[in-house]
Amino acid sequence: MSMRFYMPVRLIIGEGSVRSGAAELGKLGRRCLIVTGRTSAKASGALDDACAALKDAGIEYAIFDQVTQNPYLSTCLRAAEKALEMKAEFILGIGGGSPLDAAKAIGVLAANPGLDGPGLYKGGWKNPSLPVAVIGTTSGTGSEVTQYAVITDDLDTGNKKGIAAPDGFVTLAFGDPRYTHGLSYGFTVSTALDALTHAVEAYFNKLATPLTDMFALSAIRDVAHTLRDIKGKDPADITVAQRETLYIASIYAGIVIAHNRTSYCHALGYFLTEQHNVPHGMACAVLLPHFIRRSAKLNPQRAEQLTEAIGMDTEALCQLVIELTDAPSATLTSEQMAEMAGRFSESANFKVAYGNFGYDEAVAVLTELFGG
Amino acid sequence: MSMRFYMPVRLIIGEGSVRSGAAELGKLGRRCLIVTGRTSAKASGALDDACAALKDAGIEYAIFDQVTQNPYLSTCLRAAEKALEMKAEFILGIGGGSPLDAAKAIGVLAANPGLDGPGLYKGGWKNPSLPVAVIGTTSGTGSEVTQYAVITDDLDTGNKKGIAAPDGFVTLAFGDPRYTHGLSYGFTVSTALDALTHAVEAYFNKLATPLTDMFALSAIRDVAHTLRDIKGKDPADITVAQRETLYIASIYAGIVIAHNRTSYCHALGYFLTEQHNVPHGMACAVLLPHFIRRSAKLNPQRAEQLTEAIGMDTEALCQLVIELTDAPSATLTSEQMAEMAGRFSESANFKVAYGNFGYDEAVAVLTELFGG
Repeated sequence: MSMRFYMPVRLIIGEGSVRSGAAELGKLGRRCLIVTGRTSAKASGALDDACAALKDAGIEYAIFDQVTQNPYLSTCLRAAEKALEMKAEFILGIGGGSPLDAAKAIGVLAANPGLDGPGLYKGGWKNPSLPVAVIGTTSGTGSEVTQYAVITDDLDTGNKKGIAAPDGFVTLAFGDPRYTHGLSYGFTVSTALDALTHAVEAYFNKLATPLTDMFALSAIRDVAHTLRDIKGKDPADITVAQRETLYIASIYAGIVIAHNRTSYCHALGYFLTEQHNVPHGMACAVLLPHFIRRSAKLNPQRAEQLTEAIGMDTEALCQLVIELTDAPSATLTSEQMAEMAGRFSESANFKVAYGNFGYDEAVAVLTELFGG
Repeated sequence: MSMRFYMPVRLIIGEGSVRSGAAELGKLGRRCLIVTGRTSAKASGALDDACAALKDAGIEYAIFDQVTQNPYLSTCLRAAEKALEMKAEFILGIGGGSPLDAAKAIGVLAANPGLDGPGLYKGGWKNPSLPVAVIGTTSGTGSEVTQYAVITDDLDTGNKKGIAAPDGFVTLAFGDPRYTHGLSYGFTVSTALDALTHAVEAYFNKLATPLTDMFALSAIRDVAHTLRDIKGKDPADITVAQRETLYIASIYAGIVIAHNRTSYCHALGYFLTEQHNVPHGMACAVLLPHFIRRSAKLNPQRAEQLTEAIGMDTEALCQLVIELTDAPSATLTSEQMAEMAGRFSESANFKVAYGNFGYDEAVAVLTELFGG
């Protein structure tokens, strides 16, 4: 048995954690660029808390609030320019996966003036990233605790692409489940399905260890039962405890993909987001039942262990995902399938799946799901 | 609910992990002082693997092999001198808790020439520690993943004292359960009881969170069942899988005390080691049944959760500990009890226990157990 663990983020979760954590922010520098999307950082209350905490710590700051869903490289380059102009000593990303991933990319770009898109994606840049702190406001991405940042390369292919930073963890992550209280039903479900997909993909995974299993099974259990309980509810009736459970599960799920990576639900679902504007979690969920059934067939012992740990069998889990999935039906031509399968055929997403999941099987999955 | 997590150690566990991790050692520097005890690093095979890995990575090294059980401050000062002489860029501690704790102290002393005992214990030294890597060879201490180093102050009081390093984690920790295969029955049990005490003290603890519970319950379950299975066995009959289970549980238990600290079993057991030469794990185990019973009484709900998670109730756990405890009976005078209780009455060890565990209750516990 072989087992690695590395998750160097200082994680501070709880009501009021941002205000009470001002001293931790003060250790990162005296000048900060805040990176957010257009609305959620404000609407959640996280931005106000962050500004107050920075003031408490005597830190000067400016706000860059132009990060979109599936953040663009061009946006990150503009933000990095702003960071350089204000001589930012650290970056504070606030929001869901998009501003958090963008903050990571901006930290690298600001520390390496002149670095361009190809350089960013390639990795091996000269200077380490500026310190990055983040405040999560959704219960899905897990970006708070992963080394990954997925940035859409709008200056070249238009595809979503991970930047290559093996040690790209943030320094400090705050999570306050209150920030998720105002999220809509659809958004709550989609982000929870993202977290569920992370945990399931990292559980049925060639790199899984007892340690990642512990986090993954806890996350799968908590998300699955919470999703079952909130299905069809008015979002105002989702309790504080349920919001908290979903937030913590998203962090656990992030910790497992930091070690085991995501698998083919993520890869083969990208086109639904890129071309059909399907929210990321829903895009993953479209693929998830296939992934669960295939994995359970190839490793029935692991499926049994999952059933025992979460109190729900794999088929019930699939049915739950199917009932919650709300994505427009999409079809792909043979050429598109070949392109999708080819794009990921050498990726880690395929390699960590059980068996020998490669080009041919990817085409078969796409045909089954999107063959029209 | 409020939850913090911080464990920045890069952890590499598994058969052959030291040899295969040479590249990670290479990132720490070009000159290394190896710090070990007199025998176990050699006997376990860990020292040979380490030397081979350092050679693979082209790193010059020297060996300081004079660390004793309950390592002395004076020893650490001598080793730091040696590190300075050879211009060591990092320290590699190999062994159980003693060499690992010593390596942490030596890293600080070598980075701060002129720092003396009082300065070391007080903390707030000028330069950060040299990078420290460790190779664990016992399944007890968890020092691989904690920020703690307990060094006996032989230049002053002769007491065991923690050095004050809130961020005193090592950079890199290797664990290869093969190194524990040759340990005697008594040593295996004593170190396992140390790990069990860590996990139990951090579970019945005011600072416990769902995240520390997850690690603690897994460790308690695995150590308790393994101890029950190996009780009275010839150590040669302890299986590789059992050794591995104990090693990983000791790491999980270390992760929880890194967050929640240890409690009064540790504090009130110190005198058994200091004055009666009782191995550390056994000294803790003498106090553990009292701790479990008191905690279960004050928080029956947590006791039930433990019973459900480990498949053994708290009284069965106490009985198992009692059956395995092999320590000479010791008595204390009233003056000695007052001194012991006073020494820790303001310590975190007491504060994290349920209720208001203070001077009076400590004297009562000592009277019950050592009143003669």
